Amino acid sequence: MAESPITPREKDFATWYQDVVLQGDMAEPAEIVKGCMVIKPNGYAVWEILQRELDTRFKATGHQNIYLPLLIPQSFLTKEAEHVEGFSPELAVVTIAGGKELEEPYVIRPTSETIVGHFFAKWIHSYRDLPLLFNQWANVIRWELRTRMFLRTTEFLWQEGHTAHSNHEEAVAEVLRILDLYARVAEDVMAMPVVKGAKSRAEKFAGALKSYSIEAMMQNGLALQAGTSHDLGQNFGKAFNVQFQSKEGTLDYVWQTSWGVSTRLIGALIMAHSDDKGLVLPPKVAPVKAVIVPIYRKDEERSQVLEVSVRIAAECGAHLDTREGQSPGAKFFHWERRGVPVVFELGPRDVASGNIVLKRRDTGSKEIILQNQAVSKLASTLDAMQTELYQKAKQRLQDNTVLANSIGEVESILNNVTAEKGGGKFVMAHLKDDPSSDARIKEFKASVRNIPLVDDYDGPGKCILTGEAVDRRVVIAKAY
Amino acid sequence: MAESPITPREKDFATWYQDVVLQGDMAEPAEIVKGCMVIKPNGYAVWEILQRELDTRFKATGHQNIYLPLLIPQSFLTKEAEHVEGFSPELAVVTIAGGKELEEPYVIRPTSETIVGHFFAKWIHSYRDLPLLFNQWANVIRWELRTRMFLRTTEFLWQEGHTAHSNHEEAVAEVLRILDLYARVAEDVMAMPVVKGAKSRAEKFAGALKSYSIEAMMQNGLALQAGTSHDLGQNFGKAFNVQFQSKEGTLDYVWQTSWGVSTRLIGALIMAHSDDKGLVLPPKVAPVKAVIVPIYRKDEERSQVLEVSVRIAAECGAHLDTREGQSPGAKFFHWERRGVPVVFELGPRDVASGNIVLKRRDTGSKEIILQNQAVSKLASTLDAMQTELYQKAKQRLQDNTVLANSIGEVESILNNVTAEKGGGKFVMAHLKDDPSSDARIKEFKASVRNIPLVDDYDGPGKCILTGEAVDRRVVIAKAY
Repeated sequence: MAESPITPREKDFATWYQDVVLQGDMAEPAEIVKGCMVIKPNGYAVWEILQRELDTRFKATGHQNIYLPLLIPQSFLTKEAEHVEGFSPELAVVTIAGGKELEEPYVIRPTSETIVGHFFAKWIHSYRDLPLLFNQWANVIRWELRTRMFLRTTEFLWQEGHTAHSNHEEAVAEVLRILDLYARVAEDVMAMPVVKGAKSRAEKFAGALKSYSIEAMMQNGLALQAGTSHDLGQNFGKAFNVQFQSKEGTLDYVWQTSWGVSTRLIGALIMAHSDDKGLVLPPKVAPVKAVIVPIYRKDEERSQVLEVSVRIAAECGAHLDTREGQSPGAKFFHWERRGVPVVFELGPRDVASGNIVLKRRDTGSKEIILQNQAVSKLASTLDAMQTELYQKAKQRLQDNTVLANSIGEVESILNNVTAEKGGGKFVMAHLKDDPSSDARIKEFKASVRNIPLVDDYDGPGKCILTGEAVDRRVVIAKAY
Repeated sequence: MAESPITPREKDFATWYQDVVLQGDMAEPAEIVKGCMVIKPNGYAVWEILQRELDTRFKATGHQNIYLPLLIPQSFLTKEAEHVEGFSPELAVVTIAGGKELEEPYVIRPTSETIVGHFFAKWIHSYRDLPLLFNQWANVIRWELRTRMFLRTTEFLWQEGHTAHSNHEEAVAEVLRILDLYARVAEDVMAMPVVKGAKSRAEKFAGALKSYSIEAMMQNGLALQAGTSHDLGQNFGKAFNVQFQSKEGTLDYVWQTSWGVSTRLIGALIMAHSDDKGLVLPPKVAPVKAVIVPIYRKDEERSQVLEVSVRIAAECGAHLDTREGQSPGAKFFHWERRGVPVVFELGPRDVASGNIVLKRRDTGSKEIILQNQAVSKLASTLDAMQTELYQKAKQRLQDNTVLANSIGEVESILNNVTAEKGGGKFVMAHLKDDPSSDARIKEFKASVRNIPLVDDYDGPGKCILTGEAVDRRVVIAKAY
């Protein structure tokens, strides 16, 4: 694909994002399938890294992977009243199969709580069968009207955890354990600080007792929900009659949880770190950590430069860019846009001097180092970059989190924010958890993001709408 | 789930297979979704191992993973005439989405050649863009009438490779490289010998110039197509107008390949190695290689036995089964049915003597070894088991491959074969590659499996139907 300029963030954040995705070989729209995208090699490679990081942690905490059918009998959706109301408008429905009209249509899973309910009822009979700790890696479809690559697409890839427990306490512990796991991956792997908290009643998952989320701040100050973990209570247990015999011999409905993160994380990653030159990837999620670009003009230079390059590439585990017919400049440009953390340059003079040039993607800084320090210097540079990207994002989050003590203040802060021009803030205000509060905030084209688990501010206060006492400030922001 | 007896192979091979799948925690039917299954933890863990083995090899040979949409505009299927004819009867069609009837329905991918064609036309312009070497891990749906867990299900998981090349020679080399790769995974990892060959013209993939397969023999002597690799020629290139400018400046259509293996491999694995006690897994595909079952009665025995067990489990990387309320016998039974290659037993007397009992799953042999030899003995046992399972399967393939020199001979050999009772053979006969030959063989409820790439028999001969000269013998067998 021809490489064209990237729109600066200042000019138009939304267009910048799209340019970075396209030029970074991350994805492209699949116009022929409404709201879908093709995930391209660099994007899919990042997803594979995130999958591995998450999957290892799921298994270490006792979860097992399974795979459930893509299609769900339409009637299943109606068994949990809130759930069907929440998902009905977004369903894709299969009405014909094998050349015949189906007696009962199937929906393509928008999420799998209902089919999980059906199987849990088959698998769970006694407290001895509990807990069941399952996860699945899958595609889902939700027919969204307004889509944007990675952030909101009709089809997306995700993992969905589904667990069943014999009591509520244990289910809540699971919900929070997973929320923590998500936060650690976001912060430690993606270098993206997040706010852990409970969703408001109005924003909880359709069918849940309570939902929790991690919320990240993008470079334009907008919020992005990066992962959710739901306490389903006994709602699906009752809807699908999932009962178990307790130790005491009584029959009770199971307590369930569900939780998920999706390819949306890749959109978050891009909007958290990338710059006007293109993709910036924290080293831990970069499919290629380092590339060597050999520089030579004459044939005799070529063999000398390549000999040293091959050696250093092997030592560093770096990719050696030997493409012919591409100038070194074109190669730098190529890797820069793909977010490779470190690019080494090696020319004839470096061969003579024993030096090599190390260029760091995020700061753009160049350093001449000794060739025999390449391995250690690469390692320390990758470490530094990972840490500093996190610190930079953390600082941004702090700088753009503000307190508001009246609804007027909330409004005036949010009025100056747009997705294109940025200026977004996390507005911390005391607000009662009531659907009417959410409705009021929606008037500013914003939303209550979550109610933080840890109060970093001034504790209890009076709701800025009703004056009633509330426990702590909530996060209000414009969001993706 | 309660564990019930496994039907012996001799009695009814098909029921035996189903029992092994269910009791091995591999899968269960999802009756509520026609012809679908739930892949359970042990089955999915085997799939993850196969994915890793394949994916590593794909990447080492220059392939990159991407992800394409699940839904395909219905009109796409019609662009390649043979392709639409082959797949139309099996399609699941989405006609409603987002609460509205769609103007053009989407089909759920039965395979992705058509959507690949569309994107290749966008991505390929010049010989410099070639080759493109892509793979995707995905689910597909084919509305099959008769289904069987893993072997043939309406939805299944697979990988599908899609590549584009500037000339036919290179495309054919890719097709055969992948066929080899599949054969190596089948033989070296799954301990399952296969016959590599070309499919007959009648049996080739809908839209391909030529198809190749690996064919394995199950314990009942039936054939199972375990992987296919297709030379698509320029058929899809022409259907989707995928043209490139050659080095010489002329325009030409690309040469494409596609290739895939699926969760069907798990069915093959089960039918190749398992026995009347349940699942047998070659060590390389076993999610758990070894389990330690501690044996004790009194509380003081318990702590001593557990202390040693914990140490040996850590040294061997074995799973320690500490479940309370389960007898050692029930534990042995449990792991046996799940195909764990080695089970260690450790009781109070072993603590005193420094011994431990090693039991091997495939032979059932028990050996008393020194605890300090557990690590090395485990490694050598796993190696031996991997090798011997392959040899046993290889011997079976040889013993049940027979020559036939007339159509009457073919018929009489195949007449005694049923999927339930076994007795299947690979019948090697000289047969012209013509759809009429395939039709004749179908009368015996059998098929031409493939035309081997390497002739292990007597070279050219006369077709048993037409008397015409043919190059070599083909494989004829009843098959899954």
